[in-house]
Amino acid sequence: MAALGLTWVRIGEFAWGRLEPTPGDLHFGWLDEAIAVLGAAGLRVVLGTPTATPPRWMLTRHPDMLAVDDQGRLRGFGSRRHYCFSHAGYLEECRRITTLLAQRYGANPHVAAWQTDNEYGCHDTVISYSEAARAAFRGWLRMAYPGNGNDGDIGALNAAWGNVFWSMDYADFDEIDLPNLTVTEPNPAHVLAFRRFSSDQVVAFNRAQVDIIRQHSAAPVSHNYMGRVTDFDHFDLGADLDIATWDSYPLGFLEDRVGATPEQQRHFARQGDPDFQAFHHDLYRAVGAAQGAHGAGRGRWWVMEQQPGPVNWAPHNPAPLPGMVRLWTWEAFAHGAEAVCYFRWRQAPFAQEQMHTGMLRPDGAEAQAFHEAAMVAAELADAPDVAQRQARVGLIFDYGAEWMWQIQPHGAGLCYFDLVLQHYRALRRLGLSVDILPPSVRDFAGYGLVLAPGLMVVPDDLKAALSASGAQVLIGPRTAARDGEFRMPVPLPPAWNGLDVTVSRLQSLRADMPVPLAGGGAVTGWLEELEGGAEVVLRTASGDAVAMRAGKVTYMGGWGDGEALRLLLSELCALAGIAVQELPEGVRIRDTGTERFWFNHNPHPVDTPVGALPVAGVLRVPV
Amino acid sequence: MAALGLTWVRIGEFAWGRLEPTPGDLHFGWLDEAIAVLGAAGLRVVLGTPTATPPRWMLTRHPDMLAVDDQGRLRGFGSRRHYCFSHAGYLEECRRITTLLAQRYGANPHVAAWQTDNEYGCHDTVISYSEAARAAFRGWLRMAYPGNGNDGDIGALNAAWGNVFWSMDYADFDEIDLPNLTVTEPNPAHVLAFRRFSSDQVVAFNRAQVDIIRQHSAAPVSHNYMGRVTDFDHFDLGADLDIATWDSYPLGFLEDRVGATPEQQRHFARQGDPDFQAFHHDLYRAVGAAQGAHGAGRGRWWVMEQQPGPVNWAPHNPAPLPGMVRLWTWEAFAHGAEAVCYFRWRQAPFAQEQMHTGMLRPDGAEAQAFHEAAMVAAELADAPDVAQRQARVGLIFDYGAEWMWQIQPHGAGLCYFDLVLQHYRALRRLGLSVDILPPSVRDFAGYGLVLAPGLMVVPDDLKAALSASGAQVLIGPRTAARDGEFRMPVPLPPAWNGLDVTVSRLQSLRADMPVPLAGGGAVTGWLEELEGGAEVVLRTASGDAVAMRAGKVTYMGGWGDGEALRLLLSELCALAGIAVQELPEGVRIRDTGTERFWFNHNPHPVDTPVGALPVAGVLRVPV
Amino acid sequence: MAALGLTWVRIGEFAWGRLEPTPGDLHFGWLDEAIAVLGAAGLRVVLGTPTATPPRWMLTRHPDMLAVDDQGRLRGFGSRRHYCFSHAGYLEECRRITTLLAQRYGANPHVAAWQTDNEYGCHDTVISYSEAARAAFRGWLRMAYPGNGNDGDIGALNAAWGNVFWSMDYADFDEIDLPNLTVTEPNPAHVLAFRRFSSDQVVAFNRAQVDIIRQHSAAPVSHNYMGRVTDFDHFDLGADLDIATWDSYPLGFLEDRVGATPEQQRHFARQGDPDFQAFHHDLYRAVGAAQGAHGAGRGRWWVMEQQPGPVNWAPHNPAPLPGMVRLWTWEAFAHGAEAVCYFRWRQAPFAQEQMHTGMLRPDGAEAQAFHEAAMVAAELADAPDVAQRQARVGLIFDYGAEWMWQIQPHGAGLCYFDLVLQHYRALRRLGLSVDILPPSVRDFAGYGLVLAPGLMVVPDDLKAALSASGAQVLIGPRTAARDGEFRMPVPLPPAWNGLDVTVSRLQSLRADMPVPLAGGGAVTGWLEELEGGAEVVLRTASGDAVAMRAGKVTYMGGWGDGEALRLLLSELCALAGIAVQELPEGVRIRDTGTERFWFNHNPHPVDTPVGALPVAGVLRVPV
Ligand SMILES: [Zn+2]
Ligand SMILES: [Zn+2]
Ligand SMILES: [Zn+2]
Repeated sequence: MAALGLTWVRIGEFAWGRLEPTPGDLHFGWLDEAIAVLGAAGLRVVLGTPTATPPRWMLTRHPDMLAVDDQGRLRGFGSRRHYCFSHAGYLEECRRITTLLAQRYGANPHVAAWQTDNEYGCHDTVISYSEAARAAFRGWLRMAYPGNGNDGDIGALNAAWGNVFWSMDYADFDEIDLPNLTVTEPNPAHVLAFRRFSSDQVVAFNRAQVDIIRQHSAAPVSHNYMGRVTDFDHFDLGADLDIATWDSYPLGFLEDRVGATPEQQRHFARQGDPDFQAFHHDLYRAVGAAQGAHGAGRGRWWVMEQQPGPVNWAPHNPAPLPGMVRLWTWEAFAHGAEAVCYFRWRQAPFAQEQMHTGMLRPDGAEAQAFHEAAMVAAELADAPDVAQRQARVGLIFDYGAEWMWQIQPHGAGLCYFDLVLQHYRALRRLGLSVDILPPSVRDFAGYGLVLAPGLMVVPDDLKAALSASGAQVLIGPRTAARDGEFRMPVPLPPAWNGLDVTVSRLQSLRADMPVPLAGGGAVTGWLEELEGGAEVVLRTASGDAVAMRAGKVTYMGGWGDGEALRLLLSELCALAGIAVQELPEGVRIRDTGTERFWFNHNPHPVDTPVGALPVAGVLRVPV
Repeated sequence: MAALGLTWVRIGEFAWGRLEPTPGDLHFGWLDEAIAVLGAAGLRVVLGTPTATPPRWMLTRHPDMLAVDDQGRLRGFGSRRHYCFSHAGYLEECRRITTLLAQRYGANPHVAAWQTDNEYGCHDTVISYSEAARAAFRGWLRMAYPGNGNDGDIGALNAAWGNVFWSMDYADFDEIDLPNLTVTEPNPAHVLAFRRFSSDQVVAFNRAQVDIIRQHSAAPVSHNYMGRVTDFDHFDLGADLDIATWDSYPLGFLEDRVGATPEQQRHFARQGDPDFQAFHHDLYRAVGAAQGAHGAGRGRWWVMEQQPGPVNWAPHNPAPLPGMVRLWTWEAFAHGAEAVCYFRWRQAPFAQEQMHTGMLRPDGAEAQAFHEAAMVAAELADAPDVAQRQARVGLIFDYGAEWMWQIQPHGAGLCYFDLVLQHYRALRRLGLSVDILPPSVRDFAGYGLVLAPGLMVVPDDLKAALSASGAQVLIGPRTAARDGEFRMPVPLPPAWNGLDVTVSRLQSLRADMPVPLAGGGAVTGWLEELEGGAEVVLRTASGDAVAMRAGKVTYMGGWGDGEALRLLLSELCALAGIAVQELPEGVRIRDTGTERFWFNHNPHPVDTPVGALPVAGVLRVPV
Repeated sequence: MAALGLTWVRIGEFAWGRLEPTPGDLHFGWLDEAIAVLGAAGLRVVLGTPTATPPRWMLTRHPDMLAVDDQGRLRGFGSRRHYCFSHAGYLEECRRITTLLAQRYGANPHVAAWQTDNEYGCHDTVISYSEAARAAFRGWLRMAYPGNGNDGDIGALNAAWGNVFWSMDYADFDEIDLPNLTVTEPNPAHVLAFRRFSSDQVVAFNRAQVDIIRQHSAAPVSHNYMGRVTDFDHFDLGADLDIATWDSYPLGFLEDRVGATPEQQRHFARQGDPDFQAFHHDLYRAVGAAQGAHGAGRGRWWVMEQQPGPVNWAPHNPAPLPGMVRLWTWEAFAHGAEAVCYFRWRQAPFAQEQMHTGMLRPDGAEAQAFHEAAMVAAELADAPDVAQRQARVGLIFDYGAEWMWQIQPHGAGLCYFDLVLQHYRALRRLGLSVDILPPSVRDFAGYGLVLAPGLMVVPDDLKAALSASGAQVLIGPRTAARDGEFRMPVPLPPAWNGLDVTVSRLQSLRADMPVPLAGGGAVTGWLEELEGGAEVVLRTASGDAVAMRAGKVTYMGGWGDGEALRLLLSELCALAGIAVQELPEGVRIRDTGTERFWFNHNPHPVDTPVGALPVAGVLRVPV
């Protein structure tokens, strides 16, 4: 590994069964030796806690530790992530094993970083409808609606949720069930509370391990996030960690979660979506910075698992085009990654991931990715350090808004993540680099343009900070549409100081009913009717207001398609003095402090102003 | 409200929690006051029993009161309609609260009508697979197959159902389970009995409240039915009520239950299907008359909830075109509605229906529907009273036939409701007004044409009454195909006196296999082979008999498409001396005793023989 | 019946309720009489054991006898096949009733054959997740991984399955659950063991009855298999029987299991797929021969249920074209059937199969199939006996490979059965007759070409036998890709002596990404990368190796489409000296020792070299 240029190796993340084959019978010898051997070879170890794979005996000790799905089915033993975050007994076992590991390896010089658990939320494991979750949810609600003593104020909860609506009032917190298997839809406020609770349980579970590790080790602590897992708030969790890492599987993701059209899926089948990985790089850079005061600064982040070839888990598992592993690696560095690790080193010829390729084949022969990783390692040795710099454009992403759209999409298939990703994509097609910002940010210094589409809850101080930022601000659709209890505010949204705009009515539309805009493009899926004295800056072809502006704040009352966003964002960039350049399909730029990177995600070469980009090509142009 | 021209206000239908926040602690003060205030303003109150929303404490008292779905999952608290109709304990609670309300308000001069519960059957709540339902079903079967004493005649049941077929005989009624989760399909006779039982449970549940109200009040009693809810027999339930009302959501229904093609869904997205509401108006007029002896007369019926703008619950929720709320209102009056109420008065900014628009916005501003309702109120003041008159065409609709087709569609997607609606649509495209008739009707005086497509069970006296009616009679496909125990009669169907036709074989067909007819149009989905000496009046292009006739009775042995129905019905109208006029797409006529109404459901203007019809236009031509 | 030319009648298969209406109260009189009457009429009786329909009282005696589906739902009483194969109590009841029948009728001269149960596996009834199944599975595993004493070697199991992978090691066999409802996919080795166990349970269940019957009767014992039921190994089960029979429903199968395109479904809607029945004829001929040493010989097999007209259970149920019942009957005889029986004799006007046509209508009139069966009977009387002869082409079909592809399709929709059927179809379009071979065959004498596509496990002695057979051998894709424990072998597959080919990487592909081949045709869905010194005999259009050959063994590293298979198989036939002739769509040939049969499955006539083939035409050309 070291010869290839690798410097980091992660181990231990699924090893509970080998560490403790029967309860209390601990076997650390093999791990001692493995760390010593790797360290002697000059490799630095990321040591994972093994809590994503509780051994079978754990279920004997804690028969009720399993999660329950929304249909009431136990999610059993036999694969991984078979635990409920709310189970106190399992949490205590995790504290125990983490303590043992931290005590033993906290001062080991080769253990240069830690990883907690593995891919929280993968396989839809954040949300559990178990008895343990129900009990914990009631406790969480008592804290959220505090009363005298420990019992909470049930009247406050009833009032906040509007439970009077269908005689849903509760007399006691112990009457509150989880919001699944109701006859028709549950109260959105009820669901939102449950989603927040579920996220908080992940954060608390993780924090328990972090607190223990820090008592014994000065090495940084990380977790490897997944792509498009939004069931817990990564900013909240990231605030307890030193490094955000994520597992980047461009081809698998294009197959199972990007949401691309069939045409795009075919076009990019061997290269991956041109924006999806970059979006996550930028998102997790922000998550990595979540410990800081604002999040606009530079965060520590890695790619912990880079797809090296065909994987085993997507609906279809094609091979990447030659060069794509190199491209993906460079792309990560261009977005500020400190490290890019490949998963896995050697393909395992047994069990669930036997079809997941690695750097080596099961027979030890070098696979395609081996050579590309070696090439990047050599190139990196010759390259200047990537110096990150703040982008001119900031885009707010809020996990809470994602939950609210999921709870109340209002139109089939409408989704906050898609809305934000489509704005990100439109910005990138204009040649822009983007910073993803958490909703907690209040300092927008340095940004010429800030976007907050679909951000359903906007606290007053965020409204004020945006208005005062000096940047062009794009909000809507649905921005500031709800208060924190999922109620529609009165005066009606967006109720933005200095912006005389009111959403007087709104509708969701079938996909085959685009509403054309006067200047080109269309609104699809979501359309609001706007009232007020602000300037109308965009109209439907039949003359209705779609976007309105006062000063530097623009409210967009619809879901713009690609062309509508191109036009609107181009105009806003012009107002903000941000230069744009329209890029061909599949070509993307990333600006760092030292270089401009060009990436070709197409299966064909492309001519660019800086020269020809071959298939899977990466061009680095010094600034 | 009164200033707008409204005269009726419904209250109380979800108020159990406010009336009785804890068991036995009754709070009528607010309701006393509300009725007094409304009455003082000149409004008449419809008082709803609150039994659709049992409070949370009810489940503590009756933990087993919940319904169970066909997969065995409890349907829990947290929204509404969370009860099983067969639960004796909950029924008793409903009797108790209804008694309290009836005693207190039965003589109140402002309470001018009652409503029981709310939208029976909405959210698929008629059919429950609970323990309570199983016990009640066994009791119901004992009554249906009576024996000596109370125990029923299990041999009679076995014989009636043909249980010998797969060794399914029972030795005792207590061995009979509900027909869900069987290995493959259950005995259709078993399912039919369960469907009849389930319907009867709703009727009995409702009757319990009606009986109590009548002891204390002379005001009429109503229930608000839903669109295309067919799981209980509305004629049976309506026979206990004074007024049938229904909740008309044209745009929501087009999205989630009309069954239109995607093209039609787009074309009518902002206007609703041109026949679906009218069909229900005519259906519920018949349901309103169900107390009478025959049902062909004039029934009392209302629209209790008229969609005022975008709603919250359909897959997509577009806004109606301007004028459609007025059109829908006039359409209801033209079909004989006594009253049209709008739901809701003011949009609630919280809980499940926060996206359901009203006459007023959440901030109290007047919404689009407010102005259209005011316009109708003014127009009504100037208009002659609508005088209903019997139509020349009667169309039988039978809830039992709907269940039988659902139990045994024989071909994927074949549905009785669709069959009847397509006949209704074809009649309306010929400019005809139609009376929907219950299967209990025997007096067909005044009708020139009576249709009974798909009516699977036809008692001998109904056959005789139809043959003797003097009207042209159209039956088939599948008319008289089964006896009351879901057995195929021998001699084979339709076994109709005076009509020498036998269905010798039948088949269901893929949608891409239309069978063209000799004279135009085609049969799709369902085709029978006919034998016998009756005159062949319709053949396939290859010469096989499809429709046969003797005297005035025509048997149609296939599912005709729009063109086939147009041709066949035109011919029958000509034979019956009923004038027709073919209408453009989306234009419909309704004849009353005083006026002919023209309605334009298209998103574009249409020229008609009586002048131009604008978008959402209503023309009234005196007779 | 006898007058029609029928010679066999099957009775008793669902009669448990009539034989034993209450536990222990036996009623054999009616059956004695039925057999006597039939026998007196010259008919031979196939007597079925009634174990597919346990009476209701059986559940009272054995409340836990029901199967459980993969979602944990009990599969209840009310139709048929409501039992779990692993339930010891029900198995004992089956032994009891079988003993009673065998004792009473074992020597009856009219009982000329037996049938065990009915359609094992129909309605997905092989696999059960019941408690009984779980306990039995643990016992089965103890036998599969034997240790000292009775407790098995859990370490051997852990090693074989690779349970270390995600800390899945077990300490005891009693910790092993069934592989359903896991959080993400279970270990494929775990699932494969469960699938093998499930198959073995069916075999054991059947064997219990066979052993009893043989103690009392010399008549042959049969079972009626279904079409495309692959959840148990029919070769294993068939090894205990004398005759394989199957139930052939060409139109129903085309609708619900062939997997044809919509265009093919429409084209063949009234004739059935042109290869699906023939494939099963050839398959069950091999199953019928499974008792012998090799399976390439002649097996005894029948069609026990031949579709006579529209049935009741498919998504659509069209009528066969006139003549198809005759064609299907002749086709069965041409493939070697000893007998063809029609199901059912008279259409039952009640219960689940009331829409399943028969030879007679419910009113006793003769239906279409009656006349066609009579015609075949007359033709048979004049025809020479069909003399079977070994085909020149053998095609291996392995139930275990089917399970492995189902467990790990790797690409959505990829299925072993389809792969084999597509090879069979391509062979038949070349005018070839084919023998299906079990994976146990080692003697390939007489074959010029042997195919083993997708045969994931190939024992060394089968590899050797194929290489030494003298036939052209076509293997791949995925042939020899796994060992018996679902591990990828190292050296990498196919690891075939004398064939220097290694699958270095593989991928699954979206259906819209065909990879064109240099000589025509394409690879779709599955593509391997091949290395090694063998000759490349097929390349992609861009030059990558797709098929390689050494001597007479050809490895195909992709899923060829119809054109690719046509080209490749034509070449292999040329190398093997097997004459081919390309047939028009829907026309098929079957060669026997005495005649060449031509069949026209098209809805239009076709000209052939031997004359015109009318719709549903059968031509017999003497050899
Ligand atoms: Zn040990
Ligand atoms: Zn009180
Ligand atoms: Zn008896």
